[in-house]
Amino acid sequence: MQELDRRLRPGAIPWMSAGRYWGQMNSDTLTPAMIAYSYAMLSNSNNVALESSMATSKMESEVGDDFAKLFDYTDGWGHITHDGSMANLEGMWYARQFKSLPLAFKEVVPEKVEGMSEWELLNMSVEDVLKIMATLTPDQINDVKAHSSRSGKNIQKLGKFIVPYTKHYSWLKALDISGVGLDQMVQIPVKSDFRMNVDILEQTIKDLAAKKIPILGVVAVVGTTEEGQIDEVDRIVKFRKEMEKQGVYFYLHVDAAYGGYGRALFKDENGNYVEYDQLADLLKEHHVFNYPVKISKHVYNAFKAIKEAESVTVDPHKMGYVPYAAGGIAIKHMAMRNAISYFAPYVFEKKTASLPDMLGSYIIGGSKAGANAAAVWAAHQTLPLNVTGYGRLVGSSMEAAQRFRDFLNTLKFNIKGKTVNVYALDNPDFNMVDWVLKVDGETDLAKTNELNEKVFDFSSFYDSHVYENRFLTSHTIFRKDTYGDSPLPFIEKMGFSKEDWDKVGEVTLLRAAIMTPYLNDDKLFDFYSKGIAKSMEEKLNEIL
Amino acid sequence: MQELDRRLRPGAIPWMSAGRYWGQMNSDTLTPAMIAYSYAMLSNSNNVALESSMATSKMESEVGDDFAKLFDYTDGWGHITHDGSMANLEGMWYARQFKSLPLAFKEVVPEKVEGMSEWELLNMSVEDVLKIMATLTPDQINDVKAHSSRSGKNIQKLGKFIVPYTKHYSWLKALDISGVGLDQMVQIPVKSDFRMNVDILEQTIKDLAAKKIPILGVVAVVGTTEEGQIDEVDRIVKFRKEMEKQGVYFYLHVDAAYGGYGRALFKDENGNYVEYDQLADLLKEHHVFNYPVKISKHVYNAFKAIKEAESVTVDPHKMGYVPYAAGGIAIKHMAMRNAISYFAPYVFEKKTASLPDMLGSYIIGGSKAGANAAAVWAAHQTLPLNVTGYGRLVGSSMEAAQRFRDFLNTLKFNIKGKTVNVYALDNPDFNMVDWVLKVDGETDLAKTNELNEKVFDFSSFYDSHVYENRFLTSHTIFRKDTYGDSPLPFIEKMGFSKEDWDKVGEVTLLRAAIMTPYLNDDKLFDFYSKGIAKSMEEKLNEIL
Repeated sequence: MQELDRRLRPGAIPWMSAGRYWGQMNSDTLTPAMIAYSYAMLSNSNNVALESSMATSKMESEVGDDFAKLFDYTDGWGHITHDGSMANLEGMWYARQFKSLPLAFKEVVPEKVEGMSEWELLNMSVEDVLKIMATLTPDQINDVKAHSSRSGKNIQKLGKFIVPYTKHYSWLKALDISGVGLDQMVQIPVKSDFRMNVDILEQTIKDLAAKKIPILGVVAVVGTTEEGQIDEVDRIVKFRKEMEKQGVYFYLHVDAAYGGYGRALFKDENGNYVEYDQLADLLKEHHVFNYPVKISKHVYNAFKAIKEAESVTVDPHKMGYVPYAAGGIAIKHMAMRNAISYFAPYVFEKKTASLPDMLGSYIIGGSKAGANAAAVWAAHQTLPLNVTGYGRLVGSSMEAAQRFRDFLNTLKFNIKGKTVNVYALDNPDFNMVDWVLKVDGETDLAKTNELNEKVFDFSSFYDSHVYENRFLTSHTIFRKDTYGDSPLPFIEKMGFSKEDWDKVGEVTLLRAAIMTPYLNDDKLFDFYSKGIAKSMEEKLNEIL
Repeated sequence: MQELDRRLRPGAIPWMSAGRYWGQMNSDTLTPAMIAYSYAMLSNSNNVALESSMATSKMESEVGDDFAKLFDYTDGWGHITHDGSMANLEGMWYARQFKSLPLAFKEVVPEKVEGMSEWELLNMSVEDVLKIMATLTPDQINDVKAHSSRSGKNIQKLGKFIVPYTKHYSWLKALDISGVGLDQMVQIPVKSDFRMNVDILEQTIKDLAAKKIPILGVVAVVGTTEEGQIDEVDRIVKFRKEMEKQGVYFYLHVDAAYGGYGRALFKDENGNYVEYDQLADLLKEHHVFNYPVKISKHVYNAFKAIKEAESVTVDPHKMGYVPYAAGGIAIKHMAMRNAISYFAPYVFEKKTASLPDMLGSYIIGGSKAGANAAAVWAAHQTLPLNVTGYGRLVGSSMEAAQRFRDFLNTLKFNIKGKTVNVYALDNPDFNMVDWVLKVDGETDLAKTNELNEKVFDFSSFYDSHVYENRFLTSHTIFRKDTYGDSPLPFIEKMGFSKEDWDKVGEVTLLRAAIMTPYLNDDKLFDFYSKGIAKSMEEKLNEIL
């Protein structure tokens, strides 16, 4: 234990120190979650098998219901996943399976899809697939599933999988692992606000459809990993409805691993998603903000439209403020899970419908800690998933981010005769702040990148003792090959030219998810932000 | 917290009560692991990203080395996985990728495989693939990887994936999820000792090869889920060497999720796998057994041969006695991971080789609790992976299983004028005991199945309050469609005929992994086993 302690103290990040760590999506976690984890760990249940986990499986079932309700999936279902990457892989699994089922119908129960062309089969909606599934006998269902993508057949026929440039890298792995393959990936550029360019998305889908290339699925991101930006889910949903009329359909998964809990901000005490013109009053009534924070109509609409997606990733271990590792997924229709399920669980044979689900049948993962479910459940019990609970918590972090962004914009350092300016990205959709430190008059983008790289080194494990460090943060690099020219307006704002950008091809930013909810107080914010400025100044003094 | 407690007490299994719970692979977990988990959870590090987890990533790296050493992978590597199913999926991912790489060589660097036919390419060994990889430039490697199975191409060309009937169901999911597909699965029957029938495996592979159908991979199980039996890995390894001379090669993964830690039993203090004729002395010297337990040459050889497999699943949350969820995988050659890796991690750019690995590049999962690594690390620090540590612990559980098996064979109940006999399966490879209760003279197998089903109901959550129950166990059903006739000798021993077996097609057994290490004492064993017998008798009295 001494050795453990000796290693953990200097080798762990002090997230719990609210004014010192602003970097990755980490902060202090919720005490009820930590206590519940520790306590439930003592009985060490395994939620993959109901037989070993009656209490914690029930908790996970309730958490799954919470997820479904959070996204207004009135017919939905959800569960805790090992992590967000696994939730994304599971979303991919659902998309692949549903796209393949109509081809399986054609083989096994051709009468159900009589007269449909392969193109029509490959554009059948999840709802229509479920309708046909509901008419089949159990034996037919098993036979259809045996002819689905799980057989290994037809996967390369299912079409393109479309993601924005700002997707998390777990989508590459999901394409790889699922056998769909990276060759099927189509990446959509982002705009200068780092949201997916939906105009290009629409054109891409139209072009593919014109060439009779099916679209397996589309991923929209709610809370991009590097910028916290929110894709226009509402526009994608609207576009999908239009295309459906033209016989083109694609599966829609929302990757809200990071942003998902933010939807609580828009829900009143009864769990209703309020009208936009009532939002300001609701937030005021519940004392969400102590500082001017603008929730744009765009953000409101995007969150609202998640309910139209077939599935959504939502990670309790990010904005749910529970300990690792707890990802999550919710699906729009509970019956969807019967399309991917395995074996008739013992529970069903017993016909004891009052028991919670035997998760092992329905998920990608195997053994899973019941303690995780207890932790998330305890957090949800304490903080409801509406404006009174997580809404306030997430709102406080968004406020802190806005305060920090505004603060950065006022900063200027004088270091050894040089002036160092601060340029913050205008990425206000969620609680992420990205910024660049730049020596006034510096004309070399590469040197500016170097400077920020060094500041990061001095603000992380790489070159410093984290426990003695007054300010710890994270960083990111926007590269031309993945971001296109979307960073260009920002580059130009800093005084660099398009030529500089073309030549260097990347820009290094410091990056902070402002998770802490404690900085919505003027005095506290003042205290910590001054400390941070001082720490940055000291580092600049060492570096320059 | 009160609600949590109110739910957990009656809704959790009291595994820690060593003489009451003998069922699933659960028991008390190691105190150092529980404390380390709770403590490390407070700093909530995420081992997917080194930047957030310097201390716990280092611990995971050491645990990975422990895994590699446990299996005598002198050039190996390992890490903690979310669970055993994920480790198996990762094994499948490796197999798929390595089988596909020669086809990618052909496309990208044809000069490296000049003159080789597709059949030869599809039978290239992992070692030969690595040799070629080692000659490529970084750009060529990226290009080869882009043309590998991760592209989605060629997956259906890679051949059959062979598993025993006794495989864990996660292999079905792995075939499904990976896009290899269940159509590629070939299942090998087991013998009446519930080990894979290697004669049939050999013939199957020869037949496939004769038809020029490639073999993607073979899974051998070390510790079958329902019987704890151990496949003849040594024979499979030997056969593979023979086939290699004939130009036929398959990837070999050992699923030792359950049995893996058992390999510690054969390792002396210096970590050397002892000779079989020295084993008895070693076990005696370290006071492993207080009761006659025979470690067969078969079991010894099978464990020894794991070192020849390309990868192996080993779950700390099973025989590692750490809390959920901690699975594990080890690979034979560290360089193998470069064939599946993603992006050049930041660490590499920094050229700080002394830092541990950035796991996110090399694993299927995403975020992972550093606390898990701390828990497994603390367990390994306390109990070395040799005869002095885990060897003794696993040995004690094997001893308890042998004691219980012998005890069951002496049991006979007299219930309301009926005699109830006990038939235990002769499955002594590891620490699992399966048995059937049968009314003397009962000629109906279905009724006997019903009786055991009811005894299970009375010994589990399904019909009883677990906290007041003196004996809790698990159960299993051997079905003709998956077990073939392998249970027949046992069926006949109970006095049923082949006709009964053919008609009913299944047999229900009570099933207990005897995990507890505390029953290697005559008095304690006597105390608990009598309690169990009394509890069984009471249940039989209620049922009959």
